[in-house]
Amino acid sequence: MFEFQITARNNRARAGVFTTPHGNLLTPVFAPVGTQATVKTLTPEHLKDINASLVLSNTYHLYLRPGDELVRDMGGLHKFMGWHRPMLTDSGGFQVFSLAQTRRIDDDGVTFKSHIDGSTHRFTPEKAIAIQENLGADIIMAFDECSDPNDHAYSKLAMQRTHRWAERSLEAQTRTDQALFGIVQGGVQADLRAESAKFIASLDTPGIAIGGLSVGETKQEMHDTLDIVVPLLPEDKPRYLMGVGTPEDLINGVMRGIDIFDCVLPTRLARHHSAFAPEGRLNLMNATFARDGRPIDETCDCYACKTFTRAYLRHLIVAKELLAGTLISIHNLRALIRLMEEIRTYITDGSFESRAPELMKQWHGNAERTKKVRVDE
Amino acid sequence: MFEFQITARNNRARAGVFTTPHGNLLTPVFAPVGTQATVKTLTPEHLKDINASLVLSNTYHLYLRPGDELVRDMGGLHKFMGWHRPMLTDSGGFQVFSLAQTRRIDDDGVTFKSHIDGSTHRFTPEKAIAIQENLGADIIMAFDECSDPNDHAYSKLAMQRTHRWAERSLEAQTRTDQALFGIVQGGVQADLRAESAKFIASLDTPGIAIGGLSVGETKQEMHDTLDIVVPLLPEDKPRYLMGVGTPEDLINGVMRGIDIFDCVLPTRLARHHSAFAPEGRLNLMNATFARDGRPIDETCDCYACKTFTRAYLRHLIVAKELLAGTLISIHNLRALIRLMEEIRTYITDGSFESRAPELMKQWHGNAERTKKVRVDE
Repeated sequence: MFEFQITARNNRARAGVFTTPHGNLLTPVFAPVGTQATVKTLTPEHLKDINASLVLSNTYHLYLRPGDELVRDMGGLHKFMGWHRPMLTDSGGFQVFSLAQTRRIDDDGVTFKSHIDGSTHRFTPEKAIAIQENLGADIIMAFDECSDPNDHAYSKLAMQRTHRWAERSLEAQTRTDQALFGIVQGGVQADLRAESAKFIASLDTPGIAIGGLSVGETKQEMHDTLDIVVPLLPEDKPRYLMGVGTPEDLINGVMRGIDIFDCVLPTRLARHHSAFAPEGRLNLMNATFARDGRPIDETCDCYACKTFTRAYLRHLIVAKELLAGTLISIHNLRALIRLMEEIRTYITDGSFESRAPELMKQWHGNAERTKKVRVDE
Repeated sequence: MFEFQITARNNRARAGVFTTPHGNLLTPVFAPVGTQATVKTLTPEHLKDINASLVLSNTYHLYLRPGDELVRDMGGLHKFMGWHRPMLTDSGGFQVFSLAQTRRIDDDGVTFKSHIDGSTHRFTPEKAIAIQENLGADIIMAFDECSDPNDHAYSKLAMQRTHRWAERSLEAQTRTDQALFGIVQGGVQADLRAESAKFIASLDTPGIAIGGLSVGETKQEMHDTLDIVVPLLPEDKPRYLMGVGTPEDLINGVMRGIDIFDCVLPTRLARHHSAFAPEGRLNLMNATFARDGRPIDETCDCYACKTFTRAYLRHLIVAKELLAGTLISIHNLRALIRLMEEIRTYITDGSFESRAPELMKQWHGNAERTKKVRVDE
C-alpha cells in the first residue's frame, strides 16, 4: 500500500512519489500544520488552491479536544475536517514534553496534565497508536521522547526509550492502511544519532522520521546531524524531518536527502503580519506599506497576491480584521509549497545542486529561526 | 445609468433589476456588511460563492481608517477590497450619532471625536459626499441625522436637517456614476414620516433609503412606518431599508414594497457561534452538537453545509479556532441570500403573498431582534 518511488536524484536530493490511501505525495513536500484539525484561518478549499498535498495534525491536541474517539465516530480525521488528501499525525510525544504540565516519564510511558484543564492523562506507545488509529491519518508516528539535545546522558536514555517505544508502537498497530514511521532521536550527539538511525532503519517501517531537531540547536548542528543520520537510512523509504522549518532549512534539508517537512512557521508568521517576500520577510503592519500598491510578491500565483495590495493587507492588520491572517497564511504557505515545487523541478531536470546556492541566497532574508513549538497556537 | 426595471409584482412586493456600473442587482436583495472594506473573516471569493451581489461598507470607518483619500489613490473601494460587483456606502451619519464620542450637531454638520483615537473631525453633507466619491461605491447616501424615534420634537428637527442636508448632498455631488439616494427620516412619528417621504421623493434621486428604523422601536412600529412611507414613494425607484434585518424583517419588508436590505446580523451572529437553521437559531457551542453529524441545514447549498458537520463546527468553536466564524458567516449569509432568491422566485411566479405566512413561520425561530449598530464590530 505504501510504495515510495524515487523518480530523480541530484546527489543526495531526491524527487519521488509516495503512495497513500488518499493519493500520491510528490516529494519533496512541505506539509502545512493543522494542529486542531484545521490549518488556522483556512478552509480546505484554500489549501487545495495553494496545491497543498499533505496536512499534519496533532495527536496530543485532538486526543484532548475533541477526543480521538469522537473523531473516529464522526468518520475519521479526513472526513471530520473536510480534507481528503493525505494526512499525517505526530505521536503526541513532542507536545507531552513541551506543552503538558507536570509530566512523569517512566519506561512504560508518560503521565501528564492537560494544558487545557489540568486533567491527568497517560500516553504509552500503545495508547499513542490507538489514538492515531482512531484519527485515521495516512502517515502516523511511533511514540517517542525528545531530549535536551546537548545533554548526552539524557539524550541516550530518551533514545533508548524511543527505540523500545518504536518496537511497541509497531506491535500495537492493527490497521494496515496507515504508514507507521519510526523516529530517529539522539539530540546532537553523533554517536547516538548513528545508533538511532541504524536501529530505526532496522525496524523496516515504510518511512522514517527524524525528530528532536529545530529545538534550539544551531543550524550547523542540524546539518551535521542530518549528515550522520541520512546516509544510514534506507534509500528506498521516505524521510521526514519533523517540525522543520524555514525556507533555508527546507533547501538544506532536501540537499541532505530529506523528503517530507512540516512547520507552523508560515501560518504563525502570517497571524503576526509577517509575509515571505522576495526582498525578505515583510512586517505588513509597517507604515511603509500604507500606500504600497504592489502584492506581497509579484511573482507569486496565490489568491492573496493575485487579488490584494500590501496597502489593503496593512489596512486589514491595522483595523484588526482577521482576514489579514487568512490572506497572509495563504501566501506564506503557497510560498513554501511553490519553493518545494520549484526544487522538485530542479531535481528532475538535474539542476538542483547547481541552483541551490542561488535559491538559498534568494530566500536568505526570510530565513531567521523561530522558537520551535510544533503546534500552531 | 441607474435604471430600475420592475419585472414582477405581488401586491406591494416587487421583483426588479437595478442597473449599476458594476453590474445588475436583482431585487429584492440582501447586502452583507463589510464595515472596514471587508465582510469580516470572508474573502471576496466566499462572497461570490454564496451569490452575494451587493456589499455595504461604512463611510465613517473608512474615512477614519485607512482614509478615503488613500482608498481613492489605491483605485477605489472595489479594487482595494477585491470586490467587483456593486457596492453601497452609507453616509456616515448613523455612526457619527451612535459610535463617535462627544459630537456637536449644528445645522451645518456634526463635529465629533473618533472612537479610535479621540481625534476631532467634522462631517457636513458636502464632506460626506466628498468621502463617498473618493470611496467610489455604486450607491451612496445623502448625509442624514437619525433621531430618538419616540421623541417627536427631536425627530422633527432631525428630519428637517436631514431634508436640508439631502439637498446639499445632491448639490455637492460631482460624479455621475454613483446613485445618490435620499434618506427618509422621522422616527416613528406618522406625520413626520409622511412629510419626509414626500419631501425625499420630490428630490427625484435614483433610489430612496428609509433610515432610522430597527433602532429600538417595536416590530409593529416598523411595519406601521413602512406602511406610511412606502405608498408615498415613487413606484419606479428602488427602496432601501437601512440596517434591517432579521429573516422575518426581510419577509415583512418585501411584503411592504422594500427592494434593498443590509444587516450585520448574519455575520455578527456567526462570530458568536449562532447559526440560522430550520429548527431555529442554533448556538453551535452547545454540547448537544458534539457528535451531531448533520450540517447546520441539510437543505442549504453553502460550502459550510456541504462540507462540515455541526460536530466539527462545535469543535472549532470550543478549540477557539477562527475558522468557525468564517464557516458560520458563509452559512448565515447564504441563508439570507437564499431566502431573498426564494422570495424573488415567488414574486415572479405570483405566489409570494400566499406563501408569505408559511415562510414567516418557517423563519420564526430565527427572528429575534438584536441591538442595532449597523457596523459589523
